[in-house]
Amino acid sequence: MPVFLDSRDASFNAGFAALLGAKREDAVDVDDTVAAIIADVRARGDAAVIDLTLKFDRLQLTPDTLAFSEDEIDAECARVPEHERAALELAAARIRAYHARQRPEDKRWHDEYGAELGWRWGPVGAAGLYVPGGLASYPSSVLMNAIPAQVAGVERLVICAPTPGGVVNPLVLLAARLSGVEKVYRIGGAQAVAAMAYGTETIAPVDKITGPGNAYVAAAKRRVFGRVGIDMIAGPSEILVIADSDNDPDWISLDLLSQAEHDESAQSVLITTDEAFGRAVMQAVDKRLETLERRAIAGASWRDYGAVILVRDLAEAAALSDRIAPEHLELCVADPEALLGQIRHAGAVFLGHWTPEAIGDYVGGPNHVLPTARSARFSSGLSVLDFMKRTTLARMTPEALAAIGPAAEQLAISESLEAHGLSVRARLERLNR
Amino acid sequence: MPVFLDSRDASFNAGFAALLGAKREDAVDVDDTVAAIIADVRARGDAAVIDLTLKFDRLQLTPDTLAFSEDEIDAECARVPEHERAALELAAARIRAYHARQRPEDKRWHDEYGAELGWRWGPVGAAGLYVPGGLASYPSSVLMNAIPAQVAGVERLVICAPTPGGVVNPLVLLAARLSGVEKVYRIGGAQAVAAMAYGTETIAPVDKITGPGNAYVAAAKRRVFGRVGIDMIAGPSEILVIADSDNDPDWISLDLLSQAEHDESAQSVLITTDEAFGRAVMQAVDKRLETLERRAIAGASWRDYGAVILVRDLAEAAALSDRIAPEHLELCVADPEALLGQIRHAGAVFLGHWTPEAIGDYVGGPNHVLPTARSARFSSGLSVLDFMKRTTLARMTPEALAAIGPAAEQLAISESLEAHGLSVRARLERLNR
Repeated sequence: MPVFLDSRDASFNAGFAALLGAKREDAVDVDDTVAAIIADVRARGDAAVIDLTLKFDRLQLTPDTLAFSEDEIDAECARVPEHERAALELAAARIRAYHARQRPEDKRWHDEYGAELGWRWGPVGAAGLYVPGGLASYPSSVLMNAIPAQVAGVERLVICAPTPGGVVNPLVLLAARLSGVEKVYRIGGAQAVAAMAYGTETIAPVDKITGPGNAYVAAAKRRVFGRVGIDMIAGPSEILVIADSDNDPDWISLDLLSQAEHDESAQSVLITTDEAFGRAVMQAVDKRLETLERRAIAGASWRDYGAVILVRDLAEAAALSDRIAPEHLELCVADPEALLGQIRHAGAVFLGHWTPEAIGDYVGGPNHVLPTARSARFSSGLSVLDFMKRTTLARMTPEALAAIGPAAEQLAISESLEAHGLSVRARLERLNR
Repeated sequence: MPVFLDSRDASFNAGFAALLGAKREDAVDVDDTVAAIIADVRARGDAAVIDLTLKFDRLQLTPDTLAFSEDEIDAECARVPEHERAALELAAARIRAYHARQRPEDKRWHDEYGAELGWRWGPVGAAGLYVPGGLASYPSSVLMNAIPAQVAGVERLVICAPTPGGVVNPLVLLAARLSGVEKVYRIGGAQAVAAMAYGTETIAPVDKITGPGNAYVAAAKRRVFGRVGIDMIAGPSEILVIADSDNDPDWISLDLLSQAEHDESAQSVLITTDEAFGRAVMQAVDKRLETLERRAIAGASWRDYGAVILVRDLAEAAALSDRIAPEHLELCVADPEALLGQIRHAGAVFLGHWTPEAIGDYVGGPNHVLPTARSARFSSGLSVLDFMKRTTLARMTPEALAAIGPAAEQLAISESLEAHGLSVRARLERLNR
């Protein structure tokens, strides 16, 4: 049974703290294994990747078959039915349009002394996207990772996607085609992350690695962080719905289940101002769970981590929401805009009754790679900025150096960095001559 | 002796690759120690922090003296001479003015179906800045970390700064005052990072931790990444100067030495189109090294990692520079703007003869916390964005959902996520009734 909490109860704070603190993932310690895999790939390159792929994915590759050939991709893409292709193309177009607005601006200006200051943005040189195999091999995730990189102007974009037993999802390859991916390697796990970070004879190293993965992939990303850039370490998915009484309980139950069905560790929470409505949603969830295809997964998630929280008013809902800092937040209330004004921490907000979270997973436009596990307190969903970096610029004139150089010299002396001060002083002396 | 490479030589590629690959830091494996310290702080809170501070910093604290009191800070700040205070205030004002321009914009728009899309930026709730003790306790680094957080609108800003033997740099406390820091804790090492990430009875947890530190601090930041946000893992400092013959060799030698004097692992490289000039700079460095206060450190850095590279033309210089992806890049050439157009990867660029890198360390305005060890390929210097996060927004209308919902439903079916599709379908059915 999911938790039912009432903010008026004396035990509420303890119950809410337990909900917040619930450990939803076994922290499998795979760090030593991953360290050994990375060392092996660094030492033996392609040979290590090929051995590990045979071992973990039961797939015999050669350096020539590490990547799908263009012919293979063509053949797989041709298998995609027209209605699926059209849906994927609509999603790609909308994601591209949204992310195009994220391109940051360069700035240059002169200060009061004539010094020129500013910055310039540019794309990372190459990006590698990790796409899980099996059940979690989602074409939508390919679009959500690759399109921001493409919009950023990344020159070389590759994918690593394990194909256990050689099985590939043709939609994944089509999504790669639609988003400018150059190569798709049929490798996965820590060995794929290591190959992208350090390179092998066949796989050129990249500068940035993004994309979800299992515990091995996550541990490998953490280890190569610094050698390359990485995105966040993703945890299990979450949704928080804040709803007043004026909602269809069935709609809300489906929104909750659309997270729960991802993963037994996913979490779906409803905060409502109306107890009867809250109970009605719980009933609606139970009814849907009778027939849902993924009812085993969704049912376990709802039973173990689901919650309905009854609050006095929406201000209280907003305060609790900020403590959760949800990945996905639906505001199913009469005035979602007013409630949004009270919310500080959330990865993505879905406003009003007509915006089920699933729209954001596919065709809304915003990215569906979002901060989980309360990390919306300090991090953002994937964006074009993740595939760009900024170079700061400064150009002094003799006049500007004369004006601000002495302060730099003073601070250099205070910090006992004599050469810093002298590099300014030598120039100032030329001016004084 | 620093390396002298000539791009015309047959051995150049090997020599340049060796320079790029030089390991400038011993990778001390402190990971197990750090894991134990973090576990101790999580389990015992203040008591662990106090024990570890006594052990490592020879300083006996109590929960009441973990932080400096306002009176203590007042007294230390009063000890700062007026000329030092004025220099620090000028630096703070210029850093603040530069970073104020980095504040990102919120956006909201309607698409062709009437759906409203956009995003909203907000500050992280609380930030913790690590300030090393001893030699590397730089007041300028306090400004460079704290002011972006302050400009971002971060509500609570704290510092952890170890004070081995109880010794504190009054300028560090003054810099904290000038940049809106609320509390300064006299603790350091992995225990300080753990206390900021997880909180203790006395120290409230923060959402983001930034700032440089030793191997223990770096390992601790890597471990708490995910629980909180972190900035980059900083490596030793670097400068690359690209200079034509029309430069004063002494100026350039001082610019090179201003990195070399930081750290024996620092790296200073000159790329020039003029061999005689390159030789003259090497002589100038040697001459300055005779008298420089930190000649032992600067001399070791220059001897072990310094390099002068002779190239045919500036296009070649730009190409080599991008392979280095330097933290600091000085363009001491007749037309620095034209050369800048050929550069893709650099943390900060200093244009022209009158912009020694030291200006950027203190009073230029741009941040001096910059990507090291070739990470300018994929990351940026510290900025206001590091202390903010973005929430994406979407609001469908019935019309918009009718237009794009079916594609979402199709993709949900393709990904075997039935509830996702049903959450859209249930709403579409209402429209069709």
